[in-house]
Amino acid sequence: MTDHIQYDDAAKALKLLDQRLLPCTEETFVCRTTEDIVYALQTMVVRGAPAIGVTAAYGCHLAALEILAETGGEGDWKTKLLEKLEIIAEARPTAVNLRWAVVRAKDAWDARGDVSLPDLAAAWLELARTIQQDDIESCMAIGRFGGVLFNDGDTIMTHCNAGALATAGYGTALGVIRGAIDQGKHVQVIANETRPFLQGARLTAYELHKDNIPVTIACDNACALLMKKGMVQGVVVGADRITANGDAVNKIGTYGVAVLAKQHGIPFYVAAPLSTIDRDTPTGDDVPIEDRTPREVTHVGDVQICPTDVPVYNFAFDPTPNELITAIVTERGVLRAPYTESINKAFDEAGL
Amino acid sequence: MTDHIQYDDAAKALKLLDQRLLPCTEETFVCRTTEDIVYALQTMVVRGAPAIGVTAAYGCHLAALEILAETGGEGDWKTKLLEKLEIIAEARPTAVNLRWAVVRAKDAWDARGDVSLPDLAAAWLELARTIQQDDIESCMAIGRFGGVLFNDGDTIMTHCNAGALATAGYGTALGVIRGAIDQGKHVQVIANETRPFLQGARLTAYELHKDNIPVTIACDNACALLMKKGMVQGVVVGADRITANGDAVNKIGTYGVAVLAKQHGIPFYVAAPLSTIDRDTPTGDDVPIEDRTPREVTHVGDVQICPTDVPVYNFAFDPTPNELITAIVTERGVLRAPYTESINKAFDEAGL
Repeated sequence: MTDHIQYDDAAKALKLLDQRLLPCTEETFVCRTTEDIVYALQTMVVRGAPAIGVTAAYGCHLAALEILAETGGEGDWKTKLLEKLEIIAEARPTAVNLRWAVVRAKDAWDARGDVSLPDLAAAWLELARTIQQDDIESCMAIGRFGGVLFNDGDTIMTHCNAGALATAGYGTALGVIRGAIDQGKHVQVIANETRPFLQGARLTAYELHKDNIPVTIACDNACALLMKKGMVQGVVVGADRITANGDAVNKIGTYGVAVLAKQHGIPFYVAAPLSTIDRDTPTGDDVPIEDRTPREVTHVGDVQICPTDVPVYNFAFDPTPNELITAIVTERGVLRAPYTESINKAFDEAGL
Repeated sequence: MTDHIQYDDAAKALKLLDQRLLPCTEETFVCRTTEDIVYALQTMVVRGAPAIGVTAAYGCHLAALEILAETGGEGDWKTKLLEKLEIIAEARPTAVNLRWAVVRAKDAWDARGDVSLPDLAAAWLELARTIQQDDIESCMAIGRFGGVLFNDGDTIMTHCNAGALATAGYGTALGVIRGAIDQGKHVQVIANETRPFLQGARLTAYELHKDNIPVTIACDNACALLMKKGMVQGVVVGADRITANGDAVNKIGTYGVAVLAKQHGIPFYVAAPLSTIDRDTPTGDDVPIEDRTPREVTHVGDVQICPTDVPVYNFAFDPTPNELITAIVTERGVLRAPYTESINKAFDEAGL
């Protein structure tokens, strides 16, 4: 559990642990403007769907402060502010939490009617803090519900980082693992390194090791062999967006891990809060998949691993069809197929 | 097509293109002793089953020269030489071609009876050259047989490097691609980057790009999505050892690619000369899998990507069961299931 997203009220700045430099360097990246927030989101100073949502929420507050400084809360501040919000919402295309956070900010604005800009900025700071706190509580609930799915002695594979660093500070997939441990189970983790950005090797291993949870890193290529050797009892991953039918869009490679889990009879769980579920998008194939800079593939740090001038594919996410998903673990309980029904029921019960 | 393995008679040295430094640096690694050969094999200055076999054959010649220098061909040179051969044969455990080359050297020795050490050294140089030339011819035959399996316009995925750099200079899997092109087909290649040692990104992309064959690099994690998107019409890989039942042991990750190909209805071919087929080993599960240094996973060049003190798995190979293999392309033709029969028939026809 980390405090990697901290709002400093005195400095009027959002302080982020710079995840690009982990695991070897712990440095803070300070955001004071919308531009800083967008840069942090796009370059993955901070990443992970819920953490993106929290960051975006603080970004709305910073945007309000920025427009206040520019306009004094007079004239066309509303138009200018809406433009800033749209810039934040569009920083990255795949995770639904980004737009969700901005929509919540807009809803809060609508609810306040003819609010002044300073009051709106204050309300948005409160909202961001609420979203952050809610996320921690959601993740802990996910951990409680998901922890029971595993047994004492299990080795659990995870892909990418859906941990404290991907959320407000507890984790979705890693929240499930923390939950199992809180329930007294001795479990260990295999962290797929997760090329190209290496969130598994750099971030999942970092935060689990820091919390004394046993973790071993493996190249993504080892996944099939480790499963075949009987070294994996279950898989749990996060999601950037879950669609109405229960398809889960998550870090590139997740779909392959799900196919392999099915092939080896290993349960495959997706852990995510309801805010990650986008009922307006019918299937995973309808979700825009971010195509990121080739440099993430061609270089590791400053080391060039590909010949110059050879093109690369760098799709950042892939959709895992619902039939490969054993269950979706949410803060409202464990959802099972048929997902359209179980998702609607969970939303109804949550009053959403 | 490259001349990456060259014996320099005047210098009495084997000159290897140092594959550890590709794609950015082209440098020669010079082997004068058995120790040099073993170092080159173990650190992967040279890698790829057939290239390992050719290198080992020249290594036997260098071993003979070394013992000649040490003993003058007198006394217990035979015992000393046998020790050297065993050191070469044990340099790496998985590829069958290594031991196969040493066995061929021993057989040639036996056939010559009471040969002198200088004559044996000369015979082994000739043998190494024959093995090298035979491999090029084998690969070209593999290319001719395998090329017909693909259609004009196909995109072919390959994993690791089973190309010119993995053989004497034409390639097995990449030989098939060269064969298709020689047959007038326009094909393009997706090179899986192949963590941890990145043979796909570093070597396959390098040699195809050099030969103007269109190639795009993708992280291993992208494999499943690319297949699902219909961007892959076939897969062809090499093998480090094929067992009596047609299981293929190849670079870690190959098994996962084969499962995914099956899942997406994409043909999955293994291209290898008969010398890669080990009829003495019943199944892929019986092949020792090399567990290599963690550093290949934890670092890329000098860049550390894993937290210090976190353990890693670094299995270098995995076995792909024969039921996932559409066909095995050899220099004697295309073998299909049931493989025990088709393999035995190919060996019989080859008089092996």
